[in-house]
Amino acid sequence: MLILMHSQSTPEQIEKVKNRISALNLTPHVIPGQLRCAIGITGNKGAISPDIFKSLPGVVQCIPVTKPYKLISREVRQEDTVIDVNGAKIGGRDLTIIAGPCAVENEQQIMTIAEQLSGMGVKFLRGGAFKPRTSPYSFQGLGEAGLKLLAKARDSFGMRLVSEVIDVETLPLVAEYVDVIQIGARNMYNYSLLKNVGQLTKPVLLKRGLSATLEEFLMAAEYIVSHGNFNVILCERGIRTFSDFSRNTLDMNVVPTVKQISHLPIIVDPSHASGDRKTVIPLARGAVAVGADGVIIEVHPDPENAVSDGPQSLYPMQFQQLLGQLNELGRFRLSE
Amino acid sequence: MLILMHSQSTPEQIEKVKNRISALNLTPHVIPGQLRCAIGITGNKGAISPDIFKSLPGVVQCIPVTKPYKLISREVRQEDTVIDVNGAKIGGRDLTIIAGPCAVENEQQIMTIAEQLSGMGVKFLRGGAFKPRTSPYSFQGLGEAGLKLLAKARDSFGMRLVSEVIDVETLPLVAEYVDVIQIGARNMYNYSLLKNVGQLTKPVLLKRGLSATLEEFLMAAEYIVSHGNFNVILCERGIRTFSDFSRNTLDMNVVPTVKQISHLPIIVDPSHASGDRKTVIPLARGAVAVGADGVIIEVHPDPENAVSDGPQSLYPMQFQQLLGQLNELGRFRLSE
Amino acid sequence: MLILMHSQSTPEQIEKVKNRISALNLTPHVIPGQLRCAIGITGNKGAISPDIFKSLPGVVQCIPVTKPYKLISREVRQEDTVIDVNGAKIGGRDLTIIAGPCAVENEQQIMTIAEQLSGMGVKFLRGGAFKPRTSPYSFQGLGEAGLKLLAKARDSFGMRLVSEVIDVETLPLVAEYVDVIQIGARNMYNYSLLKNVGQLTKPVLLKRGLSATLEEFLMAAEYIVSHGNFNVILCERGIRTFSDFSRNTLDMNVVPTVKQISHLPIIVDPSHASGDRKTVIPLARGAVAVGADGVIIEVHPDPENAVSDGPQSLYPMQFQQLLGQLNELGRFRLSE
Amino acid sequence: MLILMHSQSTPEQIEKVKNRISALNLTPHVIPGQLRCAIGITGNKGAISPDIFKSLPGVVQCIPVTKPYKLISREVRQEDTVIDVNGAKIGGRDLTIIAGPCAVENEQQIMTIAEQLSGMGVKFLRGGAFKPRTSPYSFQGLGEAGLKLLAKARDSFGMRLVSEVIDVETLPLVAEYVDVIQIGARNMYNYSLLKNVGQLTKPVLLKRGLSATLEEFLMAAEYIVSHGNFNVILCERGIRTFSDFSRNTLDMNVVPTVKQISHLPIIVDPSHASGDRKTVIPLARGAVAVGADGVIIEVHPDPENAVSDGPQSLYPMQFQQLLGQLNELGRFRLSE
Repeated sequence: MLILMHSQSTPEQIEKVKNRISALNLTPHVIPGQLRCAIGITGNKGAISPDIFKSLPGVVQCIPVTKPYKLISREVRQEDTVIDVNGAKIGGRDLTIIAGPCAVENEQQIMTIAEQLSGMGVKFLRGGAFKPRTSPYSFQGLGEAGLKLLAKARDSFGMRLVSEVIDVETLPLVAEYVDVIQIGARNMYNYSLLKNVGQLTKPVLLKRGLSATLEEFLMAAEYIVSHGNFNVILCERGIRTFSDFSRNTLDMNVVPTVKQISHLPIIVDPSHASGDRKTVIPLARGAVAVGADGVIIEVHPDPENAVSDGPQSLYPMQFQQLLGQLNELGRFRLSE
Repeated sequence: MLILMHSQSTPEQIEKVKNRISALNLTPHVIPGQLRCAIGITGNKGAISPDIFKSLPGVVQCIPVTKPYKLISREVRQEDTVIDVNGAKIGGRDLTIIAGPCAVENEQQIMTIAEQLSGMGVKFLRGGAFKPRTSPYSFQGLGEAGLKLLAKARDSFGMRLVSEVIDVETLPLVAEYVDVIQIGARNMYNYSLLKNVGQLTKPVLLKRGLSATLEEFLMAAEYIVSHGNFNVILCERGIRTFSDFSRNTLDMNVVPTVKQISHLPIIVDPSHASGDRKTVIPLARGAVAVGADGVIIEVHPDPENAVSDGPQSLYPMQFQQLLGQLNELGRFRLSE
Repeated sequence: MLILMHSQSTPEQIEKVKNRISALNLTPHVIPGQLRCAIGITGNKGAISPDIFKSLPGVVQCIPVTKPYKLISREVRQEDTVIDVNGAKIGGRDLTIIAGPCAVENEQQIMTIAEQLSGMGVKFLRGGAFKPRTSPYSFQGLGEAGLKLLAKARDSFGMRLVSEVIDVETLPLVAEYVDVIQIGARNMYNYSLLKNVGQLTKPVLLKRGLSATLEEFLMAAEYIVSHGNFNVILCERGIRTFSDFSRNTLDMNVVPTVKQISHLPIIVDPSHASGDRKTVIPLARGAVAVGADGVIIEVHPDPENAVSDGPQSLYPMQFQQLLGQLNELGRFRLSE
Repeated sequence: MLILMHSQSTPEQIEKVKNRISALNLTPHVIPGQLRCAIGITGNKGAISPDIFKSLPGVVQCIPVTKPYKLISREVRQEDTVIDVNGAKIGGRDLTIIAGPCAVENEQQIMTIAEQLSGMGVKFLRGGAFKPRTSPYSFQGLGEAGLKLLAKARDSFGMRLVSEVIDVETLPLVAEYVDVIQIGARNMYNYSLLKNVGQLTKPVLLKRGLSATLEEFLMAAEYIVSHGNFNVILCERGIRTFSDFSRNTLDMNVVPTVKQISHLPIIVDPSHASGDRKTVIPLARGAVAVGADGVIIEVHPDPENAVSDGPQSLYPMQFQQLLGQLNELGRFRLSE
């Protein structure tokens, strides 16, 4: 922490700040400046809250220098976290492909697409049974019946199942059926849910909130990890900006930045970022080229008749072609 | 809904769209244009999902013309909703002042501030017992012990209590103690929580999410109202922007806009928007001048030693002076 | 400047940074930390560019502590700047009202509105003769013919004229006719134009760019002032956000923040921020209540037939009523 | 244009709108709805301004259905524009690489880097002689002396020169020396400058403004093209968001979207978007993988001692390695 004093701060005000620092068993370091003086703090083991000092008279600004995340940081663990999901790995050298429809709609739909995808070599099946919807009047998913259909498809074709949990109440149910628990963007700040999945051992796919800063995103992962569950996969899915042409703005830069700071794997969801299948395809390629550990993509056997997110769902043939490109691009991921 | 066709769409594609509309028992209206044709839809009772049409070949864009909210709309109810909280009214002609510390810290703190505030005529006491915090390592509130202290302060000084609920698990507990249940910005998209408070009758103070559009904000209120609880108070508390000088950007314009669209009351929280007490004061004045039904403001008996949010908490004397200004400004609220 | 070193930086890397600082005739102050060390710099007369240090090996971050603006700062001049425009003052105790149409359209229009406004006591007439338009196919203003009409209206009714300049080429022409030269939001980063108006003595109304940070906004003013023209009036006119309901988001908080940092006057343009006359009125009230030195508002004698910006232009009768409210609200501006 | 009427609009109001449409020699089409009626317009040759109708009583919203850009649209010209710069092509099948320092600093610097880059096969040299800087106290470039050095380097190594013009006054000078005239992000809304480069025939590299919507970006290109210069290259360089970790947010999605709408080439500048060389490299790979026609990258012979933008400049060896990757990635650009 560095504390900046006002250019007209008095010696008494500086003394008061120094005393407050000493009272916390930390050491103040006064750095006199031409215009104003600054006071550095040393001796702390983690981040100090700026709030303690901001209110003191004469203080202009408090600049944190220690990052608030710990367990997810590469400073704590240098090598990449690799998560094993029934023999399929996420993180490290492997490129992870997760695919499937937005929502499970009925048995035929999910069995059809699972068969097609597993035939292409896809190991992870996605599909929503509980859907968070902006409108109370929209389709909210099939619930447990949907989970049963998803599990049947998963088992029939030897896949692993990724599906979203939307609240603590249904977490035990979802955790029973799925292999990877997805936390959606709208729940990234739902700390009660984060704590509860932190007490499980099942891998968690954590999506970045619509307007989450990188620090907030990493702290949400820290919530899960600090409660005991180290199997966290981060997921960039687009942020909210002033864009007039795409649903959200995919923030590709977060991928290499996270890989510098954290040992956790990070994948990209181009489907929700774009909202339009025409740009999902190039964005998926871009995600792998910037170094993502994988992608999660919506594919539907019949997008024109999808109950939700049809316009962003790929046709199976389109997806197959994309898959070939992604596998070729995979080797660029690990370049410097 | 208006459907725009591509400039090179074929008669077959137009026919397909018309058939899809007719299949929904709605009426298509083809509007031929110089460059492209458009197809209007009539006969619908509520909003139609654009997804149904976006995937059809030849369709460029689907433009919704019916708004998705119903019960919260002035088209459904023309007069202002006025909520009675044990004799104190929110909405309509009254200006509502809610004040108190960010978090209840101990008995002395909350009793001191409640006594000061009630002495100034403030009827609503705020204070957090369950705190949603970005870091798992930060102070998370006193929990039920805090609720007991808040209730004691409320009862001792004849106030009404506003406090935040952060999850469904603790909702029954919080609802037992408080008079107005606050849903924080981070939980605005927590639809499970919205549904659950929708099944109660206690008034709900719903804060706008950090990056919530107006439509999403109103739809979150619609979630609560559509589950049976009509006592919803909206609260603008600042949105996330590129700002380099304030924690969030207070979106004052949402106040008069909501009052045109909805019959629900809307108040403003300048404390969280600003993060700095120096600007909380003018922003509170601005909020009343643009027509807010009230303000919620952090006041602490000793901001320099507050456990959280000290820098944005007003000193009691500052608040008293502001209160006088707000009461004078109150009459401008109801001007055209 | 504070330089943060990586947790695994070597003594050689720290030495290299210290040497670089000494080479600039500044003094390094090493602050050892538990996790990493930081190096403070003193002895500089102004802001130091972080670029000098960011590239050095082992450096994680450079945190500037000296603000880059000088002449516009209250640390340089404590009392408010008050600008005299032919006897009418902007800044200080007076509330400034600037009103008129978006663009001058013809003689009858501008003479009618000028007569109405001056009859209400308005001293400043606005009106565009050169219009920056997003489309090359839109009406671009009447040019010099428009300036002549504006000057005639100004002279006939004893007003002062505020009009926009859009480039250096037409600056001499515009400066000849107007009393206050307006720089629009799109030109806030046009440093050539800023330097050129900086060499004049006519007052300059500088609008904040659509996505300008506070620092960039103040630095644009610093450009003008550092070239010799101290008569700068800042103007907040809304920033670009994800808003789904208003053209821009009026950032009211910038008003009290600027008044803390700078001695320059700051006014608010609610017309362009909102785009809809229904919310222009409450936003104008809010602007005065947060402490703005004035407002600039679009008023048109016949908004339904305005060539541009009709929907946000007030009817003269509406404006007159608002004017009464603003004058009453004026006394709240100067409260603490 | 589709005009939505208020749910309680009167027959007289509807009639008034119809008459206004007819008065413009266009045809109104009334579409009665359950809740409200809408009025479609046909017969227009280009976009109609919504302002004409928004002010009429009873009108709720005006929805434009014709896009405002014409000449830059694929509806006007289906095949890709390919620009020939002295035998080197931009657009179409070729991947364009533009590289060089942020600013030309002295003869040795620019000759060194030009020799290195041309040795790697790079055909386009970038370098700034006139620099738009946020602070009036920062280095503003070498001016004409810089252009001479750049031209010397270009000529010595058989390259093409890309350099920025910052105002109309210096445009003739810059145009004399360079092969491609760059318009920086801060000048994207500088319509006077756009018109002036539109009257030349030299190719123009137009960077997207910091908060420019896609429509505004394309309309800026339309300004240039509509004045006669069809040789426009678009450039995405990052937009302003709430990001806490990168200077700007690179909006990759704009690349495939532009390629659907427009025939103009579009390249990406990862250097300014990121601000940190560590992420410039993966972002450059991502840009090619999403389909960009090229990249423009800052490379400096000695980044640690660069006068500006050192932290984002690549070392020549780093760039050479990246170049190999980009050439391999090139074939993915043209996939569906």
